[in-house]
Order: sequence, then structure tokens, then C-alpha cells
Amino acid sequence: MKSLLLIGTGLIGGSFAKAVKASGLFDRIVGVDRDGAALERAIELGIVDQAADDAAGDCAAVCVAVPVAAIAGHVRDATSRCTGPVFDVGSVKGSVIDALDPVPANYVPCHPIAGSELQGPTAARADLFAGRTVVTTPVKETNDDTLRTVQRYWEAVGARVVEQTPAAHDERFALVSHLPHVLAFAFMDAASKAGPVDHVGNGFRDFVRIAGADVSVWTDILHANAERVRPHLDELMATLERYRTALDEGGESLRRLIASAVNAKRSFDEADH
Amino acid sequence: MKSLLLIGTGLIGGSFAKAVKASGLFDRIVGVDRDGAALERAIELGIVDQAADDAAGDCAAVCVAVPVAAIAGHVRDATSRCTGPVFDVGSVKGSVIDALDPVPANYVPCHPIAGSELQGPTAARADLFAGRTVVTTPVKETNDDTLRTVQRYWEAVGARVVEQTPAAHDERFALVSHLPHVLAFAFMDAASKAGPVDHVGNGFRDFVRIAGADVSVWTDILHANAERVRPHLDELMATLERYRTALDEGGESLRRLIASAVNAKRSFDEADH
Repeated sequence: MKSLLLIGTGLIGGSFAKAVKASGLFDRIVGVDRDGAALERAIELGIVDQAADDAAGDCAAVCVAVPVAAIAGHVRDATSRCTGPVFDVGSVKGSVIDALDPVPANYVPCHPIAGSELQGPTAARADLFAGRTVVTTPVKETNDDTLRTVQRYWEAVGARVVEQTPAAHDERFALVSHLPHVLAFAFMDAASKAGPVDHVGNGFRDFVRIAGADVSVWTDILHANAERVRPHLDELMATLERYRTALDEGGESLRRLIASAVNAKRSFDEADH
Repeated sequence: MKSLLLIGTGLIGGSFAKAVKASGLFDRIVGVDRDGAALERAIELGIVDQAADDAAGDCAAVCVAVPVAAIAGHVRDATSRCTGPVFDVGSVKGSVIDALDPVPANYVPCHPIAGSELQGPTAARADLFAGRTVVTTPVKETNDDTLRTVQRYWEAVGARVVEQTPAAHDERFALVSHLPHVLAFAFMDAASKAGPVDHVGNGFRDFVRIAGADVSVWTDILHANAERVRPHLDELMATLERYRTALDEGGESLRRLIASAVNAKRSFDEADH
């Protein structure tokens, strides 16, 4: 009986469980969640076969799908109980690895680039990882066979796996994910303070979509990666100062700034297929 | 023969032409565009029946679908040649109305809240306005019958029409549309400066979608509404300063800021159906 232990039955963990179930890699998925109602719901939905209390100790692999600040503790505990692969799904890797000293050889740091503004087991989807990228950030202590095994799990749920160093990963995502979340949060707050938000276009809806995030998940991410987010935020604020000056100066200054941004968007679109 | 004169055959003008054609309100659509290739393409695509040189002077109505800075000149010219309704589709209303002194009684200022990151007649879609809001901002000079007629045009293409004062409109859109464009432009620029943007999630794609805008259209909008955009940008930058401080302070400060934003997003989602 090959069991997967799922720690955290939210959107990402629940989606991994749903997707991996179809792969036949595991015979059974046992779950834990500090939110008892979420675990119950995950069992009702068939995402998890049973609560892990009934099945502790005999897991073939462990998926740690909890907010970043709680990952290291669960990884430490799981790697001490389970000799099989233990992997997480956190959006920040360096802080988790730093907190694990030494890093267990059977821990594989993972970050699936997939999500939704919806949360909890109800939002879990078997196809959440189909065609998505999963970044793995192995360190020197990571066992090679365990790394390959976990990479195969992700491939089994339809993802494409890439490897990065934890530092390169955290630097990149500070810019392309964590910073836009800060901007969307700040804007959503500002927009709502001026009264009910109505008569908006799809541009508004798309722009604020990422502000519909899980508060704990994103508090942890921004806290854990603060050192890398801060310089990007500073740079962005300097760019906004340039827009502010251009609003005073008029058309040509604005045109140069906008043209540069629109060109950047066009290059991104061309590369992003 | 009831002709509509379409000035500007881009996404918005072209979509209006396509949509109104099906309504039977006009027998023929004649077009002008300072970009000859766009006009030719619009004729090829059947959006426009013929170039307006062949049909000047006998128009039943005029749709002015050009960037904001060019609207007033075309409205002045069109209202002097055509006694029927003349309406525009610009995203800023106050600057156009200020430039028209006196405001012609047969001019109806309009702003359809619809768009796309695609541009030009090729991107025009007959259903672009279906279910969308069109804001009309009549002034005291506006003829009531002409206003109702133009509102019926928009209803005929599937839109829902609301009325606002030009000042209320411009204030609102400075916040809910012009400010997020500034943020998306500034972010897209920053993201691209750090090298090729890859391994991004749908959150990134949605967030930067509005940065794929027309440079002239958006230069004009931000220039025309600069006085109203600036205080919102200042307020947003002050909020970003609070995030910067919270990144230094740690979890609880971040949690408060994020929780406020996520609540605002939830309220917006509940109201936005």
C-alpha cells in the first residue's frame, strides 16, 4: 500500500492530490490539515481518502502544501518519519532551506507556478498543473534519486519541470510575482477607499485578480522574501516618480515612458507562447 | 440613404461599425482614417462600406473614434457639417468639453467601457459592447433628443447606458482605469529590464494585460487627465511606502495591509456580477 501524505488540503495540495490520484503513482492519499473543516471537506470531495491519524508512519511520500512560514517545521518532522521523498509547494525557497540546517537529503524544494484566486479544497482542480512550470531548487544535500522521483511526480500531473538555485528562484519571483501582488494589493485598497467600485472594464478585473489571494499565504511569502522584494519595490517607485514627473511635463515625456512599456509588453507576448 | 460617418477605424470605432451594421440603424457606413492602410483594411473587412471622400456631407450621424487629443477638432468639424448626432468614444471627457467652447448641441460625449489589448480594425468585434457599460456625460448645451438618440445607438449594440457629469466620470476613471494603466506600464518596464520574462504564471499575464495598449491613445488619456490621475498616483505611492515599511517590520504589519486589500477585493467581487 503506497500512501501519499498530504499536509495541507488547500488549492495547491488538493489539486496535486486530485491530479496524482489519476496517475496511479499512489494507492491512497492520507491528509492532515490544521483546519479540520478543510480536511473534512477534502475527504467528502474524495481528494483525500482518509485523515492521516489512521495511517501515520507508513507514507511513501509527503507533500507539504502549507504557507511558507510553516513549511520548514513540517519538512523537518516529515523527513524524520518518512524515508521517501518529502517535497513542498512554497513560493519562496531560500528562507525554508535556511531554516532547515542541515537540509534533509530526502527533501525536494518545489514551486509549481500555478494557482487561482480561489482557495481551499473546493477550488482544487486535477488539471491545475497541466502545462504549467514547476521550479525545483535542489541544494547540495539533496539526494539525486529523490529529486528525479519528485520531478516525475510533477511530470505525471502534466507539469514541465525546471531547476534553479534557490537564490535565482527567489530573486526572479520577487520581481515577476511578489512585486505585482504588492501593486495589486495597494491598488485594490486605494480603489475601494474611494467608494463602491462599479462600471469597471475587464482591464480592471484582470489587473486586480491577484489581489484575491490568501492572506496567510501572501503574508508569509512577502515576509520570507522581503529582502529581495524591497529593491524591486524601490525601483518601481522610482519609475512611478518618473511617471509623476511626466504627468506634469506633458505628452512627449509620457509617450516615451508608455512606448517603452508597450514595447516590453510586446516582447513578452512574442516570447510567451 | 442613412449614412454613419466613422472617423477612426480602430478597435473601438471598427467594433461600433460592425455592431451597428447588424442593427439596421444605418444603410451605409463611410469611413475616414488618417492611417490609410487602416481604412483600406476596414473596407476589405467590410467594416466600412466606402471611404468618406465619396460620401461627405450627407451623413445622418458621426462617430468620432480617435485618440483623446484629436477628438475636439473632429467634433467641431463634424458638428459644423452634420446636423445629426455626433458622438465620441474617448476615455477622458472634461478636456474635450473644455476645448469645445461653446459645446455643440448635437455633440454627445460618450465613453464605452470596453476594449482589448488588441488594436486596429482587424481586432474589431461586433460583440465588443454586448453587456458593457457606456458612460454618457451630457452638458447643459446637449440637446436632449440627440442624447436619447445616441443612447439608443449604444443600446442597439448591446450596451447599458449610464449618465455621469464629465467631472465625476474623469475623477472615477483616473482611479479605476488610468492609475492601473500607469502601474502596469511601470511594472512591465521594470520586469523587462531584468532580462527575458519567462516561467511566469497567469497572475503575471492578467496583471500586465493592460500594458499592451495603444501608445497614442494612452499618452493622450494620461495627458488629458493628468490633474486627476496625479493625486491618485500620490496616494498609491504613499500606500507602497507603507508596504515598504511593512516589509522591514515583518509579518503582522504585512498581514494587516494584505488583509485590508483582500477584503476590498472580496467586496468588489461580491458587487461585480
